Amino acid sequence: MNQDRRDRLRDAAIAVLAEAGGRGLTHRAVDAAAGVPLGTAKNYFPTRDALLRAVAERCLEQYRALTAALAAAGPGPSDRAGVAALLAGLLRDVAGPGRPRLLAYLELRTEATRRPWLAGLLDPIAAGDFAAYRALLAGAGLPAGAEQARALTLALHGAIPHLLAGTPDALAAAGLDDLDGFTRGLLASVCPSGEEAL
Amino acid sequence: MNQDRRDRLRDAAIAVLAEAGGRGLTHRAVDAAAGVPLGTAKNYFPTRDALLRAVAERCLEQYRALTAALAAAGPGPSDRAGVAALLAGLLRDVAGPGRPRLLAYLELRTEATRRPWLAGLLDPIAAGDFAAYRALLAGAGLPAGAEQARALTLALHGAIPHLLAGTPDALAAAGLDDLDGFTRGLLASVCPSGEEAL
Repeated sequence: MNQDRRDRLRDAAIAVLAEAGGRGLTHRAVDAAAGVPLGTAKNYFPTRDALLRAVAERCLEQYRALTAALAAAGPGPSDRAGVAALLAGLLRDVAGPGRPRLLAYLELRTEATRRPWLAGLLDPIAAGDFAAYRALLAGAGLPAGAEQARALTLALHGAIPHLLAGTPDALAAAGLDDLDGFTRGLLASVCPSGEEAL
Repeated sequence: MNQDRRDRLRDAAIAVLAEAGGRGLTHRAVDAAAGVPLGTAKNYFPTRDALLRAVAERCLEQYRALTAALAAAGPGPSDRAGVAALLAGLLRDVAGPGRPRLLAYLELRTEATRRPWLAGLLDPIAAGDFAAYRALLAGAGLPAGAEQARALTLALHGAIPHLLAGTPDALAAAGLDDLDGFTRGLLASVCPSGEEAL
């Protein structure tokens, strides 16, 4: 089996999942999206579960590559404004270029509620964020207890489906119609200023 | 058309969506789950989109009934410990008896990312929570600015998929392996004590 073709099929499966949902994820649709002869996806990933596993593993690889790239980029933002700007950039990505990746991940999460093996594969992605955001807060000298980091991480996780749905009332109620204001407000809520020197 | 039978079909559709996911939601499966003759669901809800609309409208009715019941029950908790206990009860419900309803809602949310009309139907549910949790905080005399209420609401929304997935590492990283400790910690993060008299 050819590794390049394998990666191409896995990326095509992510695109199909994002565009057509779990119902649209078939070997035939993946072959078409990858531009390969009919039967190729089935040859690499014989069952639908194998296809789901391939997508989940690809998502995990991408998550690890992103984490490694961030770590290699050196220290993160050194103050509150820098953290707020970084978080706003992440949320802007969710609503923009990152949308297909996040849609595919959302589909995987719902499929995972019926497949413990898939939930287990995705577990490191869900769990990893909590440590990463805690380190981000600590690096910027913000009060960064476990509880604050959890509240921040969960609020960011909670924002994702609202951003993907993009309906006006929920976006306005969540404050997500102004991403810069949103992340400043979120940081002010979970790490009130005045505590920075503690 | 018979309203009782209609409601029975809609409840069956929620159960099918929760158990089998969007892929499993077919007229045939709904007929079987409702214990009605084959063809009945198709008679009431001719297309798959009509079936999705029926489920979404049922979810919205249930949400409104719950909100009305809470309002009729009189003032909510009057202190921090009471709010924490109420929130822990809600999260315990997500992981327990409420699981099918929440799974169906999660499926609807992912289907809604490809169907603007469905996202519009679900919008009041997503938006309504922000006002409800803000009123809950204010009623208990906790500092309840819009930003604190948003952070709390989004963190609770963010907790739901982790509770439904139930994988150990993510639950532990989120602090969701101890729901009473979790809600106390979340409240302490978004509404630090000492501000109560402000």
